Amino acid sequence: MTEALLNDDATAQREALARGETTAAELTARYLDAIERAQPTVNALIAFDRDRAMVDARASDAHRAAHGARPLEGLAIAIKDNLDAAGFRTTAGMATRRDAPPAPHDSTAVARLRAAGAVILGKLNLHEAALGADNHNPHFGACHHPRRHGVTPGGSSGGSGAAVAGALCSAALGTDSMGSVRIPASYCGVFGLKPTYGAISPRGSVVVSRRLDHVGVLARSARDLGLLLPVLAGFDPACAESRAVAFAPPGAGPLRIGVPALDGIEVQPVVREAFARGLDALRARGHALVDLPPSRMEPGKARRAGLLVCEAEMLVEHAADWAARRERFSPALATMLAWAAGKSAADFARADRVLDEAAVQMQQWLSACDLLAWPTAPQVAFAFGTLVPANQADFTCFANMAGVPALSMPLPVDADAWPVGMQLIGRAGDDLRLVALAHALTA
Amino acid sequence: MTEALLNDDATAQREALARGETTAAELTARYLDAIERAQPTVNALIAFDRDRAMVDARASDAHRAAHGARPLEGLAIAIKDNLDAAGFRTTAGMATRRDAPPAPHDSTAVARLRAAGAVILGKLNLHEAALGADNHNPHFGACHHPRRHGVTPGGSSGGSGAAVAGALCSAALGTDSMGSVRIPASYCGVFGLKPTYGAISPRGSVVVSRRLDHVGVLARSARDLGLLLPVLAGFDPACAESRAVAFAPPGAGPLRIGVPALDGIEVQPVVREAFARGLDALRARGHALVDLPPSRMEPGKARRAGLLVCEAEMLVEHAADWAARRERFSPALATMLAWAAGKSAADFARADRVLDEAAVQMQQWLSACDLLAWPTAPQVAFAFGTLVPANQADFTCFANMAGVPALSMPLPVDADAWPVGMQLIGRAGDDLRLVALAHALTA
Repeated sequence: MTEALLNDDATAQREALARGETTAAELTARYLDAIERAQPTVNALIAFDRDRAMVDARASDAHRAAHGARPLEGLAIAIKDNLDAAGFRTTAGMATRRDAPPAPHDSTAVARLRAAGAVILGKLNLHEAALGADNHNPHFGACHHPRRHGVTPGGSSGGSGAAVAGALCSAALGTDSMGSVRIPASYCGVFGLKPTYGAISPRGSVVVSRRLDHVGVLARSARDLGLLLPVLAGFDPACAESRAVAFAPPGAGPLRIGVPALDGIEVQPVVREAFARGLDALRARGHALVDLPPSRMEPGKARRAGLLVCEAEMLVEHAADWAARRERFSPALATMLAWAAGKSAADFARADRVLDEAAVQMQQWLSACDLLAWPTAPQVAFAFGTLVPANQADFTCFANMAGVPALSMPLPVDADAWPVGMQLIGRAGDDLRLVALAHALTA
Repeated sequence: MTEALLNDDATAQREALARGETTAAELTARYLDAIERAQPTVNALIAFDRDRAMVDARASDAHRAAHGARPLEGLAIAIKDNLDAAGFRTTAGMATRRDAPPAPHDSTAVARLRAAGAVILGKLNLHEAALGADNHNPHFGACHHPRRHGVTPGGSSGGSGAAVAGALCSAALGTDSMGSVRIPASYCGVFGLKPTYGAISPRGSVVVSRRLDHVGVLARSARDLGLLLPVLAGFDPACAESRAVAFAPPGAGPLRIGVPALDGIEVQPVVREAFARGLDALRARGHALVDLPPSRMEPGKARRAGLLVCEAEMLVEHAADWAARRERFSPALATMLAWAAGKSAADFARADRVLDEAAVQMQQWLSACDLLAWPTAPQVAFAFGTLVPANQADFTCFANMAGVPALSMPLPVDADAWPVGMQLIGRAGDDLRLVALAHALTA
């Protein structure tokens, strides 16, 4: 195999594996080499284990030889470190969990990857506790943008974005409670899918919010998202947040694409321009664009309510550490949780009602068209040390509140410009329709 | 028409209307007469308006003559008084709302009934605020069992159960957060359906809990539930709790029916015996019964967590009245809400996690079979003044927590015995399968 294969999409790698141009063992070994080279500057991984990954890769090659290939046979997937993978501790990027025992079982998502023949490369860096979107992790070190040390890859799935963009894995799992898959996909110039609520079981993940959490995928092509989603999705009776989602088949023909006005969210000019070109590309392919009114609710209101819900649930998820080892939480996280600890049950119910308002806004937009196009984030990647924008998740959090699928795809920008992402947002179950449109736009 | 038609099921009434054997005006007038006769002893309604109902009934007859019949043309439906019906105030059985202005709009469910040609007879009695299951309402008077004054019809939709059993309407709407449709259906010897979560939009109802509330139907036959459900169901983009539910078609052939063991819930012998005969009837029709383990979680734990979630959400729903007119809440309700007012956001999140445990228990039972059979309530109707059993909702609340459909059907009992209900519980979307099985058992 050539080194270029590492930066191909997983679908192309799958074909190369099928043709015998490479093996799982070779692909895995090369990725591990790349990870080791990149760790000092990118720090995309919190943990990896060369020996274990190579054992799994050789087992995959043996499976292919003996029984033929499973759907993801030999692909090398990296996992955000808030999802259990048996044998690795699950840190969630938190110091409190640094010395935890290794997870005894895979999360449902990781188990489904392994059952489909994938090799698990290791555990990816993330924003502390998956609550925040710059991945400036004080306990495991910041994760850096693969294009420039000192720049954020976004978050909270920053390691996932950096590893996919930096050609350190075939594809990656992330989680997304307010935008945590799509924001790093946007900043890093890759594809990210937050599926319909519950389509991928979150069992075996560290909870941020059971209402808002979604397990998602980051990849180098839209078709890769379409390859991984059906493997990962499926009803999990052991998980109250799992849903039996019947994916609508991708349709053909022109679509009515709604574009909610950007009013009320401060958007960088470079994002505005790239997004306008993205809309032009949709028009050029025959789709009808429908101007929709701006959000009736101030996006900051939805974001703040979402944060209270997350923080209150995290007080439960991390109750033992909060009681016994509070000093191991970063001051930023401790401040947020302490604030939420002073809130009442009625405050929680009130915040959850605000999420309902955001869900209704999203549903009403979607009722006027086939799907929505919107920017993913209001800004491009920024340097650590500059002020973190408060509005990073203002375009992404509505889809979490509504439980509808949302995909971020990179827009064409100049070679030296920072990537800009466009979101495609559909109704529940329209995940593969979003994938098909993103594929058509990039094929 | 004969007086007996008032006690026929809605499907038979629909056929009589289609054959011209009666008219909406006649049916409505006879029901209003029956309501007036029954009010002193049963007190099933909080409000009704003869003139308005007769205008609507004549309009239905005119519609039939001019344009043909809509699906529920001329049927006379009564509405639990926590669902808006334009022109009626929505009291939710609460003194705080006794002087509220009339609702300006129909709730989504009532609007769908009207659009299908139904006549709205009036508003039904309920347990105060729909939180409680004996309908001993201190503000609007107790609703009594139509068979004996002084006995509870169950609750919180006690007026719905009494009106259907007492032949005061063609069918009734209820709401069900922990069992409030099924318990009165069981006590009153009628059929009640709590559909899949969100299948019927709860928009325009007084919230108990957005997670647990379900709009449901009470009727005198299973086929009536199958008649009304498709009219009432449908995605409502203006409601965050609405869901696009694709109902699975009723299948044919023998089913695997799971029966969770009754351990941990104190069940009256008469209920146990009737339920055993219900299982015999299932076996006799060729269905396979599968013994399932008892609930891993103590049912009281689920019930108590559900109550906290409801109470905290009610503090938000009734915030203005709680602040300004607290003395108008009954001492019992005020005590519950005051308790919840002292709970924290984390307590709410912790209780909601308990609901998740209950949901998983239900999902795991359902994953072992096609559907479940279980008693509806551990006891039959009891006299007011005796101790209200704490476990009334222990068999019903699990389906609310899991969001799965559950139907209560009357079991055969001696003519002078109090009715006993059996629940059939399915997976999300299996509503019409439950209806078909209940129909087959009673046809």
